[in-house]
Amino acid sequence: MKKGLFESLRNYSESDFYPFHMPGHKRRVKNDGLGEIYRYDITEIDGFDNLHAPESILKEAEERAAELYCSEETYYLINGSTSGILSAVSAVAGRAQGLIIARNCHRAVYHAAFLNHMELYYVYPEIIDEYGIAGPVTAEGLECLIKEILRKAGTESEKAGELIAGAVVTSPTYDGVSSDIRKIADLLHGYGIPLIVDQAHGAHFGLHPAYPENAVKEGADMVIHSVHKTLPAPTQTALIHRNGALTDGETLKKYLRIYQSSSPSYVLMAGTDESIRIAKEEGLQRLEQLLHLRKEFLKKISVCRYIKVCPFTEPGKLIISVIGTSMTGQALYDILRDQYHLQMEMASASYVTAILTMMDEEEGLKRLAHALIQIDQDIIEKEDQDRFSDFTQRPAKRLNIWEAYAVPFLEVGLDQAEGGTAAEFINLYPPGIPILVPGEVFDRELIREIQFYLESGYTVQGIFEHRVRVVKSPQLHGMEDCYEKNKDYLYHRTGK
Amino acid sequence: MKKGLFESLRNYSESDFYPFHMPGHKRRVKNDGLGEIYRYDITEIDGFDNLHAPESILKEAEERAAELYCSEETYYLINGSTSGILSAVSAVAGRAQGLIIARNCHRAVYHAAFLNHMELYYVYPEIIDEYGIAGPVTAEGLECLIKEILRKAGTESEKAGELIAGAVVTSPTYDGVSSDIRKIADLLHGYGIPLIVDQAHGAHFGLHPAYPENAVKEGADMVIHSVHKTLPAPTQTALIHRNGALTDGETLKKYLRIYQSSSPSYVLMAGTDESIRIAKEEGLQRLEQLLHLRKEFLKKISVCRYIKVCPFTEPGKLIISVIGTSMTGQALYDILRDQYHLQMEMASASYVTAILTMMDEEEGLKRLAHALIQIDQDIIEKEDQDRFSDFTQRPAKRLNIWEAYAVPFLEVGLDQAEGGTAAEFINLYPPGIPILVPGEVFDRELIREIQFYLESGYTVQGIFEHRVRVVKSPQLHGMEDCYEKNKDYLYHRTGK
Repeated sequence: MKKGLFESLRNYSESDFYPFHMPGHKRRVKNDGLGEIYRYDITEIDGFDNLHAPESILKEAEERAAELYCSEETYYLINGSTSGILSAVSAVAGRAQGLIIARNCHRAVYHAAFLNHMELYYVYPEIIDEYGIAGPVTAEGLECLIKEILRKAGTESEKAGELIAGAVVTSPTYDGVSSDIRKIADLLHGYGIPLIVDQAHGAHFGLHPAYPENAVKEGADMVIHSVHKTLPAPTQTALIHRNGALTDGETLKKYLRIYQSSSPSYVLMAGTDESIRIAKEEGLQRLEQLLHLRKEFLKKISVCRYIKVCPFTEPGKLIISVIGTSMTGQALYDILRDQYHLQMEMASASYVTAILTMMDEEEGLKRLAHALIQIDQDIIEKEDQDRFSDFTQRPAKRLNIWEAYAVPFLEVGLDQAEGGTAAEFINLYPPGIPILVPGEVFDRELIREIQFYLESGYTVQGIFEHRVRVVKSPQLHGMEDCYEKNKDYLYHRTGK
Repeated sequence: MKKGLFESLRNYSESDFYPFHMPGHKRRVKNDGLGEIYRYDITEIDGFDNLHAPESILKEAEERAAELYCSEETYYLINGSTSGILSAVSAVAGRAQGLIIARNCHRAVYHAAFLNHMELYYVYPEIIDEYGIAGPVTAEGLECLIKEILRKAGTESEKAGELIAGAVVTSPTYDGVSSDIRKIADLLHGYGIPLIVDQAHGAHFGLHPAYPENAVKEGADMVIHSVHKTLPAPTQTALIHRNGALTDGETLKKYLRIYQSSSPSYVLMAGTDESIRIAKEEGLQRLEQLLHLRKEFLKKISVCRYIKVCPFTEPGKLIISVIGTSMTGQALYDILRDQYHLQMEMASASYVTAILTMMDEEEGLKRLAHALIQIDQDIIEKEDQDRFSDFTQRPAKRLNIWEAYAVPFLEVGLDQAEGGTAAEFINLYPPGIPILVPGEVFDRELIREIQFYLESGYTVQGIFEHRVRVVKSPQLHGMEDCYEKNKDYLYHRTGK
């Protein structure tokens, strides 16, 4: 078997080679702790290949990853799934101007549409009311949307590919809900439209029969996996897979090179290689053990009166819900952190999210079960609660994203924004999925929802000292007074 | 004094907090060596801020960096100087369509022009013939170019900013040659044009009086510093500084968020913070020591008959030249690596480049002097040598980069390419500066130069199994036969 990337780095670091090359730390920083990083951190010297034109050791590492996911082509990403999403969307952008996306896509998908001047068409996920989370998107929903686009353009089915460059679906979601990728891929391929699956949270899919299949095997044309999210890899590492004839590998590579550093970190790349090795050699057995831990955990907390775990997610996520009670997700999150030293991934209005991976240990789940059983005893039921499910609002679009995110804007008070056109994304963080996209209209309900989030203590991005950004458009949409009052807050986006 | 980022990471890693969050390795990978990385690698949990909207610990870290370089605004880059260059150019792209760049800019500058559909105008560096390297670009050269652009457009000086969005200059170059940034900034500001300085190789500038001043202090509007190149920081880390009213901070931040991962590595960020601390506390003294080592080294090798070190670079670079001898740069590089275990940064036609930083030790420079003195004894003089200086060729432009890099192309033999329009970059690697840019024409001299590099064993990027990519344009430019013969090598860039 060929040497892994880490082993090669270790050999070099243990040799008597003196570095007259980058990085500038010359592997000589004596930081207690971070020191090991410097020891293995090199640049593209002889024998270590070049990520942007791999021929040897990095090519082999990418082939090992491709083998694990049964992909024709696989590329390392050292700028996160973000760079994979930008590259995948840019690679299909030459086909047509339209892009179908699930509304709950990561903000990077919207950024890619902005960069490529693409027109967005949304398919909305179903809502799982019982837990207040977004469910799957369906092939049926996509088919309705495609037919609607064709009808409006007066175009036949055979020419759908001339209107729609591709479709992007997030599966699983940040909450762990998967869509039927095989069915969606079949539908889209019938129309000649390539499917991009943002499977950032599903790099462990397909490694064990109790988990969903990986999207490459289910027929997606491009798939992005964040190995750092659910496999044991360092933060910022990911993979992109490309398959089939609907997309072009050379164009994908062009964009991967554009959106990623020309000085990629060998430490990140070695960490990626290690995670693939662990997934291959130990993945099945480690995930089996995790399933066992999860089952034990669920059995224990079944005594809870109010706290419940959503059953509609893949086993790697725990959506721990306090819906319909006096407790908010944020309060549960704070108690778990402050009183029990259990750090959750995120808090939403009525639940917290825990990520379980093949590296989890019994201790963690035992402590979590113990904490939840105690907390549950202090919870009381509550009837009429302010509740906002994801995507209950479907804001109207007035401008395309590439216009609204580039033209001059004013900052105005949130309560004055009604009728204005958003010039900036507004999203809850995490997960960073937009509530409002540049070009969409602030309506009363949406303003109320944002106010609720702010009052409840969530991090809402796109609000700047209680002000939001609205397009300074020639059409005033009844906002004459508002624009006049806030003219000191005018930004041109270009400097003087 | 506030705690540094690394100290905070260590506190968290030593606590009893159990992580139900990303990264998936849960800090539990027992890799002998890389293990320390996992230990300090977290995600945006409470107390650790958010790089894309910093308010606390990361904001303070960025402020520490801003203070070191005397900048109004400084941002961390975890996707290398590449992401800083893309963001800086994109941030000025809204001002006008034209972009002036030094021809020896990094490929990322060309990528930014491609993404933003900008028209490129080149200022060519002077050539330092004696060493075959590119010299500085000058304010005079820039002024000629601006006047030429204004004259062709029939526009007055006051309106230069409506034609030219900005100018990008690399200083120092990869070879270590600096331009007079203060003079260039003054000239450009007189025309209302912002200056972007790619100072990737000069993060140590301004830390010691024997080195050039840093470009922020010299008046550049935006400056990019690769801290991993010359400061003791991990690969892929960099900074961008923004100052003055000609550019817009909000727009810059927008693009930094677009081009960088939404899961930035805390290990990379902590490494950046450490490098700033070391530069601040120890930079002056360490650079003083390095200057001493360099002086000793130069004294020793002054006995060499043929090997000489270029005196026109900043002290952090050694351009070790064998020009006019029977030896090539590549041969010198190979001998130093294979026989002396001294790993150079790069080999060019007639020299090798060594990077010296504040982390270098006496041992390295002693070994290098010893090796060079020995090697010099085997060198013989040679008269009529094939020599290609950088930028002796100035290829004609037929198409804009955003057209030529997006339309269908054919792959044809290099010897058949004369008259064709490049559809791909061609560059020597390292440093990755384009010889030919998409849209420019293959002429006979240029083909001869590329053939020389290939025969001499250099890595030439943009050649695919001896074939190059030419635009399949409707105008055939006398290439009818060539296109016909190679039609099996047609790529559409969009998939089927």
